[in-house]
Amino acid sequence: MKALVYGGVDHRSWTDVPDPSVKDPEDAIVRVDAVTICGTDLHILKGDVPEVETGRILGHEAVGTVLQIGSHVRDIQVGQRVLVSCISACGRCRYCKEGRHGQCLGGGGWVLGHTIDGTQAELVRVPFADHSLHVLPENVSSEDALMLADILPTSYEVGVLAGRVSPGDTVVVVGAGPIGLAALATARLFTPSQVVMVDPAASRRESALAAGADHAVAPEDAEALVASLTGGAGADVVVEAVGVPSSFELCTALVRPCGHVANVGVHGEPATLHLEQLWIKDVTITTGLVDTRTTPLLLRLLSEGKLDVSSLVTHRFGLDEMQDAYDVFSQAGETGALKVALFNPDTVV
Amino acid sequence: MKALVYGGVDHRSWTDVPDPSVKDPEDAIVRVDAVTICGTDLHILKGDVPEVETGRILGHEAVGTVLQIGSHVRDIQVGQRVLVSCISACGRCRYCKEGRHGQCLGGGGWVLGHTIDGTQAELVRVPFADHSLHVLPENVSSEDALMLADILPTSYEVGVLAGRVSPGDTVVVVGAGPIGLAALATARLFTPSQVVMVDPAASRRESALAAGADHAVAPEDAEALVASLTGGAGADVVVEAVGVPSSFELCTALVRPCGHVANVGVHGEPATLHLEQLWIKDVTITTGLVDTRTTPLLLRLLSEGKLDVSSLVTHRFGLDEMQDAYDVFSQAGETGALKVALFNPDTVV
Amino acid sequence: MKALVYGGVDHRSWTDVPDPSVKDPEDAIVRVDAVTICGTDLHILKGDVPEVETGRILGHEAVGTVLQIGSHVRDIQVGQRVLVSCISACGRCRYCKEGRHGQCLGGGGWVLGHTIDGTQAELVRVPFADHSLHVLPENVSSEDALMLADILPTSYEVGVLAGRVSPGDTVVVVGAGPIGLAALATARLFTPSQVVMVDPAASRRESALAAGADHAVAPEDAEALVASLTGGAGADVVVEAVGVPSSFELCTALVRPCGHVANVGVHGEPATLHLEQLWIKDVTITTGLVDTRTTPLLLRLLSEGKLDVSSLVTHRFGLDEMQDAYDVFSQAGETGALKVALFNPDTVV
Amino acid sequence: MKALVYGGVDHRSWTDVPDPSVKDPEDAIVRVDAVTICGTDLHILKGDVPEVETGRILGHEAVGTVLQIGSHVRDIQVGQRVLVSCISACGRCRYCKEGRHGQCLGGGGWVLGHTIDGTQAELVRVPFADHSLHVLPENVSSEDALMLADILPTSYEVGVLAGRVSPGDTVVVVGAGPIGLAALATARLFTPSQVVMVDPAASRRESALAAGADHAVAPEDAEALVASLTGGAGADVVVEAVGVPSSFELCTALVRPCGHVANVGVHGEPATLHLEQLWIKDVTITTGLVDTRTTPLLLRLLSEGKLDVSSLVTHRFGLDEMQDAYDVFSQAGETGALKVALFNPDTVV
Repeated sequence: MKALVYGGVDHRSWTDVPDPSVKDPEDAIVRVDAVTICGTDLHILKGDVPEVETGRILGHEAVGTVLQIGSHVRDIQVGQRVLVSCISACGRCRYCKEGRHGQCLGGGGWVLGHTIDGTQAELVRVPFADHSLHVLPENVSSEDALMLADILPTSYEVGVLAGRVSPGDTVVVVGAGPIGLAALATARLFTPSQVVMVDPAASRRESALAAGADHAVAPEDAEALVASLTGGAGADVVVEAVGVPSSFELCTALVRPCGHVANVGVHGEPATLHLEQLWIKDVTITTGLVDTRTTPLLLRLLSEGKLDVSSLVTHRFGLDEMQDAYDVFSQAGETGALKVALFNPDTVV
Repeated sequence: MKALVYGGVDHRSWTDVPDPSVKDPEDAIVRVDAVTICGTDLHILKGDVPEVETGRILGHEAVGTVLQIGSHVRDIQVGQRVLVSCISACGRCRYCKEGRHGQCLGGGGWVLGHTIDGTQAELVRVPFADHSLHVLPENVSSEDALMLADILPTSYEVGVLAGRVSPGDTVVVVGAGPIGLAALATARLFTPSQVVMVDPAASRRESALAAGADHAVAPEDAEALVASLTGGAGADVVVEAVGVPSSFELCTALVRPCGHVANVGVHGEPATLHLEQLWIKDVTITTGLVDTRTTPLLLRLLSEGKLDVSSLVTHRFGLDEMQDAYDVFSQAGETGALKVALFNPDTVV
Repeated sequence: MKALVYGGVDHRSWTDVPDPSVKDPEDAIVRVDAVTICGTDLHILKGDVPEVETGRILGHEAVGTVLQIGSHVRDIQVGQRVLVSCISACGRCRYCKEGRHGQCLGGGGWVLGHTIDGTQAELVRVPFADHSLHVLPENVSSEDALMLADILPTSYEVGVLAGRVSPGDTVVVVGAGPIGLAALATARLFTPSQVVMVDPAASRRESALAAGADHAVAPEDAEALVASLTGGAGADVVVEAVGVPSSFELCTALVRPCGHVANVGVHGEPATLHLEQLWIKDVTITTGLVDTRTTPLLLRLLSEGKLDVSSLVTHRFGLDEMQDAYDVFSQAGETGALKVALFNPDTVV
Repeated sequence: MKALVYGGVDHRSWTDVPDPSVKDPEDAIVRVDAVTICGTDLHILKGDVPEVETGRILGHEAVGTVLQIGSHVRDIQVGQRVLVSCISACGRCRYCKEGRHGQCLGGGGWVLGHTIDGTQAELVRVPFADHSLHVLPENVSSEDALMLADILPTSYEVGVLAGRVSPGDTVVVVGAGPIGLAALATARLFTPSQVVMVDPAASRRESALAAGADHAVAPEDAEALVASLTGGAGADVVVEAVGVPSSFELCTALVRPCGHVANVGVHGEPATLHLEQLWIKDVTITTGLVDTRTTPLLLRLLSEGKLDVSSLVTHRFGLDEMQDAYDVFSQAGETGALKVALFNPDTVV
């Protein structure tokens, strides 16, 4: 089959590789009908995630069709249309039993396109199929479902829920890329009073306003705006959706006493924590990898029309245009790309 | 009256000052029967808390007797033996109504010995008496009660409760001074499996073991010990009870995925937050000033013999030996001082 | 002044009574500009609330203007337009300090129109003015604000929050009167998947659908409908908004395992709790009087247009048409009344 | 093998039955080394649990040795000493994924000795072995471990945790049988101020005091005692550990406003819920079947000596004395039996 293979820093190829096969009795083999690229994949290509080995097939988000299952798989069936989630879960370890699948100690967690081959391919082997695949409702399109492979549950669990967004809150989201927009969409489930999006790019601020943000502001103007919107108090919840020190530090400057900072961004270096100001301020800072425990809920809300992800995909490709899709996605500043979606033209309805 | 007056960086004097009087109808004037010195007072003398003005009477912890009340005071009565808490509370602002008195916007919060004159004196004016004083049960000694003016509720609320200590937890407390020992005492209310105290001073590690810690270890050995005690997982809860960057950074290295770091220490400079390791680790970091909302509960537990604070006071003085007490307390490395207690010999039973 | 005076079971008169005056230094005297009648007032007239004495002025909901304040009142000022909340709060007792003002031990709780004279009058004395009155934003009409004196915070706190309504939930509200419709409005702040209203009256079911309910059903059909909507599981949250045994018992039949039943209704007699079915079912049942701790939040959401109360008032009167308003409200079956609002024609803009 | 077989109401026999075998690839066959009898078994014999069919082997608590495993079992190994928990869990259904194994929809929940053959036998087939068996630490005796098959996690999860026992609480446990004593033992993990045990039998009140209760009282004296102990307020948490209407009704009379009633008892008939008093009182009532999610924690605390279950077993038998053990246990009033333990003399060390 064809797959996007990591060839070391700054090298990727769309090339022939052997088809995957069932290696463990809990595996499933899934034909990839739709797939996307994550900002994390770009991090890998920059060499920021050194545990990814040369030769690895990238990708941890897909929608596909189950072609084969291992002998221990009990719930998932051949032929089902499924969401391949970024998180696999053994279902039996301490963390899985607590619903913290992102921290799975039994061989799951974030493994696809990371420590095992991923979804940017014609076929993918998914471990622990019963715990890692989600059967899709008929009325949910593959493109929409794709948004629930990673960014929606990540923003919801690690941003909105960890940050405890509540009715009437002032919520600030630093970063108006796909993760930030997904945080906006899911924060609105709780009827905040206002959501302020912070991004240096004017185009992304415009997208954010179009997607329903109440305010959008450049980072250098964020403190003044949030102060004026909150009578000087600061924001109830601030979500970090970028992954660089300056954006994290902005979050801790924007939060009110007794407020929450929820870090969602993937960071490659340390940040400065201004404890000389924060020690007295009663703030809660959370980090985390998504557990995908809310994926079934988000699928249901999507199916019911209560969650709108329609503004996230900006560019669409055939599966064999993978390299073009990477080019467009990695130059988002010029292309205006948010999420790109690639479809297998032979299989998608 | 006599009082300990801040005279600028490194200057303090025990000197004559005018008696305080009721300035606001919610004030009470309290005769100081017992008082102590806080590590924060030493920070002030070093110039770390620049909003403290020259001429300020220091101190925010005392036990005393109510001599006079303002016209609006309704619950507190002249003659009552009371705990003067480090936190005053207006009772009417947004934060007070949420029980977050430490963040009071109405003139309370930490004001005594900070923005108004404090307790290291023969008399003290306490604002918002109904919300800021606690009448003492007869069977609680003034010395024991003194431990509840600041360090016990601080350790309990900002350390143990914010850190969500639960039965069976491995709890690490970094810093075995008074605040750390108070965290140990209050963590044990929840039957953790083990409490590990971390301190560079051998004498403090011994005190910690004597006070019931399961393990005591020097900072450089802490990671190895905690790893061995937890099968490599890390601690469920880590309490920072020092207030320097290195101790905070140690806390974030010791915590397990999905664990809590509760910062109690007063910090004068920023720390490094290793987000490149923590972003994926599902940790919760909290900071905060005590609200003293648990002071009535802790007083009750003390009165019932369910909370042991007897190991905290190491040195006792007369009130007019204030300067000697400061000398002993500020040279804890040599004197072995934990908390010092000063008593008005004319008034204390 | 004129007031609606309870004259014993089934007797009420709109009659001359002495003007109220400040009796306690925390009192305020408020001129009533708008007032409403509560189902609880009808219970009182039936004799169901025997602690209400003959001669009592009824009413615990109003919007008015502060005419006079006691010497201890610090935040509320003469001339302010205020919401008179159904709950007064001393602000100093154990329960007030926990935000549970409904259980105030210091002379507050539900006292207006219950144990002291109430709001169905030209003037009303409000105790603990700083803790019991809410200054109104300019852009909130008196009629809308009136809905926040009791029914909105009651439905929100005792129904929606106690019941833990969450995104994606199936919520059932038994009773489509004013309280039930307020539960519908506030449940929607959390984006439930569906809200099912249950009421025997076809007209109320229609009102509920018009107000945004997803389904409305007669009690005898509720079990079948909820089963079909939830794949047989039952509802996540069921709110009791009637106050009779059969409606409570229906709630416990409709709830799913691990679900919540939140009782809001005022009950005059015991209900049967089917523990022989429920003991194994992991249900949580809550009761409660409103604390009004969310009144400021609800006022803000109202002011921002995020909370719609416009469908609640069906009939409007002048203040001196009090008896007519009672007639219309007490015959809701025929008049279709939900909430009635009475305005002082001399004072309301 | 021999087993205790239910023969219809009031009939039980210790008789020969076929050995169990693996029927599902997730099954394990366990040799029973120690077993006990539950009050629920007596209910079954009275006919109170009609879904139990004639011919069923009773029992849902055991310690044993794994003899055989199905092909899908991954963690449990032949030869391990294991706790057979009262709850089996598929690990894959909605409720299992939320940690609510007691409500398992996939074939688990309480099935042993209920809908499939149970543990009062020489061998038992345990479904979903990976999710339903707990490997025992070496230093925990089989007799002590047996207490964790049902009563300890039940009392802890359904009583203490659902009731939110907290430091300083007044906790009342109605019923001083095995479940009540287990509630006492686990409530003490949270350092309540006092635990009051209520039981009509003087001998059980004495056992309760010996086991560490602060007070023990007959039901008719409970209201007066609790009022006097709490200044008239009532108890913070009341645990129902009997399962009859009068004891549940006593619980709701003893609880303070804003307090919790946690029902643990197995009920066969409805109770009266005095909503005419409770509607205004802010109480939370919970019911539930144990999920056993805390069993690993309780095993650890037991292993560490932090949980004392030594007072629970009053009578010991050989496995083939099953009928005698039933006689002693069912006549607890005369025999003073709390828990009885039966051991396989051939296998237990």
